[in-house]
Amino acid sequence: MQVIIGQGVAKVLDSGHPNFKKGDLVWGMTGWEEYSLITTTDYLFKIEHTDVPLSYYTGILGMPGMTAYAGFYEICTPKKGEYVFVSAASGAVGQLVGQFAKLMGCHVVGSAGSKEKVDLLKNKLGFDEAFNYKEEHDLDAALKRSVILLIARYCPEGIDIYFENVGGKMLDAVLLNMRNHGRIAVCGMMSQYNLDKPEGVKNLTRLIYNKVRMEGFRVFEYYPQYSQFLNIVLPSIREGKITYVEDIAEGLESGPAALVGLYSGLNIGKQLVVVARE
Amino acid sequence: MQVIIGQGVAKVLDSGHPNFKKGDLVWGMTGWEEYSLITTTDYLFKIEHTDVPLSYYTGILGMPGMTAYAGFYEICTPKKGEYVFVSAASGAVGQLVGQFAKLMGCHVVGSAGSKEKVDLLKNKLGFDEAFNYKEEHDLDAALKRSVILLIARYCPEGIDIYFENVGGKMLDAVLLNMRNHGRIAVCGMMSQYNLDKPEGVKNLTRLIYNKVRMEGFRVFEYYPQYSQFLNIVLPSIREGKITYVEDIAEGLESGPAALVGLYSGLNIGKQLVVVARE
Repeated sequence: MQVIIGQGVAKVLDSGHPNFKKGDLVWGMTGWEEYSLITTTDYLFKIEHTDVPLSYYTGILGMPGMTAYAGFYEICTPKKGEYVFVSAASGAVGQLVGQFAKLMGCHVVGSAGSKEKVDLLKNKLGFDEAFNYKEEHDLDAALKRSVILLIARYCPEGIDIYFENVGGKMLDAVLLNMRNHGRIAVCGMMSQYNLDKPEGVKNLTRLIYNKVRMEGFRVFEYYPQYSQFLNIVLPSIREGKITYVEDIAEGLESGPAALVGLYSGLNIGKQLVVVARE
Repeated sequence: MQVIIGQGVAKVLDSGHPNFKKGDLVWGMTGWEEYSLITTTDYLFKIEHTDVPLSYYTGILGMPGMTAYAGFYEICTPKKGEYVFVSAASGAVGQLVGQFAKLMGCHVVGSAGSKEKVDLLKNKLGFDEAFNYKEEHDLDAALKRSVILLIARYCPEGIDIYFENVGGKMLDAVLLNMRNHGRIAVCGMMSQYNLDKPEGVKNLTRLIYNKVRMEGFRVFEYYPQYSQFLNIVLPSIREGKITYVEDIAEGLESGPAALVGLYSGLNIGKQLVVVARE
């Protein structure tokens, strides 16, 4: 039998590893199953702080949180006052990027795929502006409108930082709106994964004209910075400066439907499946 | 009358600027004309070293040289032993990038559009491997073959540094062959400029999988480093460690045909038009 693996939180029932003992709570790669045999501890972290919801360790305090941190701070080197655009902005990673950007004093625009998600971004997560890309015939115009709304008092227009979760047409629209020396952290290209042939991206010459840097990254390489990350994020959670939205499916049997739902954007916030509660 | 401007070498006949006096030789933005009125000195440099051909200041010692320098050293941060691929490799910029890479101890593959150019790359400019992209039905396979030839003794395969002059299908083929933490300096996308619609680039998800950085740049921002650049390049020219190939058209009237020829790859090496000789 093959086990599907994913990011999970678990309690150690037995351990042959000196760093983990019975009763420890851990987060990392676990199975979609009630009991898992974990044979490598490369990406397994002991949970030290339990005054926050344990589920956060699959999200804001786990891999998605580290992804937002690495992509935004390390790849994009943000500065106060810059203009940040996040696609798939209400997802596990996007909602954090937007909030990190606000904490840093940036102006933030997000895109998402429903009115509910856009409301969430604007009213709960503190984004300055957001739009529903499914309602837009012209993504470039939508983006321009949102950014212009934000920077009506300034010149020049455009995006300094794009946190890329989507790819395809969205990337093409963004490229037309990047500012000089803009940075694009390529985290994912969700719109392209289930296509037979990926859409071609046509506006890459804009990288030259506007001297834009576009960089892919994998979160695992940043795991050594996990404790540094916790020092930034835990206090912000405790002080209520960061909000985190989860979409919880109950029971292992709801897992497959929840996974499929991700690709059509049914979830609002980080999609979780609860296998067991303490 | 509108004057077409371009990179040229000229002699000062009269000057109202304290840094330039009658008889000085200069390089920078001049007109396609016998006598030019230059009203800005932002990108105008006085020629201090005349023991090398003056024409070099339109190429290896001018804007194309600085472009190769900025893109290769500053954007790509090369290391000894890395695998470098250069498209449009026999052009003014490409031939220098390949030679800089060899001086640095890298392995270099180039692509060009004719057998003559490929011979030039391999036999005169010191490229380790080169291929004629016009002869290849499958660019990806051609690239793989060339790179594998080079690194048969090593693992893993692939390109660490791509100096991008071409765009389109070539970029797509390169993306499939980039190594982890590869760097792409986006200097130009020659294949795309004269298309009604640019070709779409389909393999950008590879930026994520292989953690690749892709960065556009403009040479003008690096002009403050010109004297530092001369300190590196002039000795290499004098010692014969760098070769430079020019394609010289005689007379201003041959200019338009030479320009058109660039877009179909008729030139071999840097295309020059001689307006006047001393």
